[in-house]
Amino acid sequence: MSPALLQHPHFISLEGGEGAGKSTAISAIRDCLQAHGHEVVLTREPGGTPLAERIREMVLNHTPSLPVTEPLAAEAELLLVFAARAQHVREVIRPALQRGAFVVSDRFTDSSYAYQGEGRGLDPAWIADLERRVVGLQPGLTLLLDLDVGIGRARTTGRDLWPDRIESEHDDFFQRVRAGFRARAQAQPERIKVIDANQPPMGVAAEVARAVAVFIGDTEA
Amino acid sequence: MSPALLQHPHFISLEGGEGAGKSTAISAIRDCLQAHGHEVVLTREPGGTPLAERIREMVLNHTPSLPVTEPLAAEAELLLVFAARAQHVREVIRPALQRGAFVVSDRFTDSSYAYQGEGRGLDPAWIADLERRVVGLQPGLTLLLDLDVGIGRARTTGRDLWPDRIESEHDDFFQRVRAGFRARAQAQPERIKVIDANQPPMGVAAEVARAVAVFIGDTEA
Repeated sequence: MSPALLQHPHFISLEGGEGAGKSTAISAIRDCLQAHGHEVVLTREPGGTPLAERIREMVLNHTPSLPVTEPLAAEAELLLVFAARAQHVREVIRPALQRGAFVVSDRFTDSSYAYQGEGRGLDPAWIADLERRVVGLQPGLTLLLDLDVGIGRARTTGRDLWPDRIESEHDDFFQRVRAGFRARAQAQPERIKVIDANQPPMGVAAEVARAVAVFIGDTEA
Repeated sequence: MSPALLQHPHFISLEGGEGAGKSTAISAIRDCLQAHGHEVVLTREPGGTPLAERIREMVLNHTPSLPVTEPLAAEAELLLVFAARAQHVREVIRPALQRGAFVVSDRFTDSSYAYQGEGRGLDPAWIADLERRVVGLQPGLTLLLDLDVGIGRARTTGRDLWPDRIESEHDDFFQRVRAGFRARAQAQPERIKVIDANQPPMGVAAEVARAVAVFIGDTEA
């Protein structure tokens, strides 16, 4: 029925909550891959294509010019995220991988298991079915920037004037999300590497770059 | 796992291609129900809530101010339609049914089986899974306005200056959609009544009104 998931050795995702130092880490990954002579495509989720970015606006409800006060059902949130992901995989990720580039995505399907699965309480078997049917692809390496929820909060407070729908959730939501990410890392230790993001961003970036160097050394050896 | 589907006796949907005379038929249904003293909520899919209408624009790609030329993957189309439906059921249909009103929807889940299933070739088992997980509800009566594809085309040609994404499909797509609708009606004759829409709209409307009168007579007897 549903096709199997393929882990691609040129596909890297970064996961983790707000304030974990993802931006700095992504720059470090790009520098590391480019230093090895690779083309690098940086992208993000939800989003990555014009249509997917419009879906992102609906999910995060962060369009000051067009506010939607209608509450978004958890099921609708999951389906919107996967609709955006279908476009992202088809229009951006697969074409880049096919021409030999590395793709580095700020968030990917693991976020759906953590946010919509653990966070919103949706059935992980449903998410797995959507992953097989709509995505068909996993990163070869996922870096989980793991961070104490309180520390993440403290780092991001005041950063956004208008926190989005997800950022406005309560701490227990983020505790569930964090637990969801850690459980996935424990279940898939070969693919998902946990980075301690309680340290300063430069330390996180250095660890991330080391993990990427090991990964491409491994896969290109 | 997935909850069962519930057929609601105050929920009526209208299905059928372009040019079948749905607008006239819907007015006839409303008049008939109101003549029996019922509150009637008229709604449509994709759409029916502010958020779902924004999703509709993405599915039909019919926003002159914000054109998206990016091709929409069949899987993304299905997920967008069900995300909109989740909002529609939760925000409009269930509340209306709960206060005792009749809900008449221009299209509902049968359209997904016909357009995204038969038309786009997506797995009907997947659509059934989404229907159980996201919708949980079926109309008690569905009126299928069945129409020769060529006649429908002839009636609508020139009606829209800018045909939308679906309207721009070729005849073989609409042949598959029609066959999909008819197969569903054959499989569920108790719920889905086929109306010959090759006749003029007033004739269609009269047949539709008769079917509704029989239905509410049956369910309220």
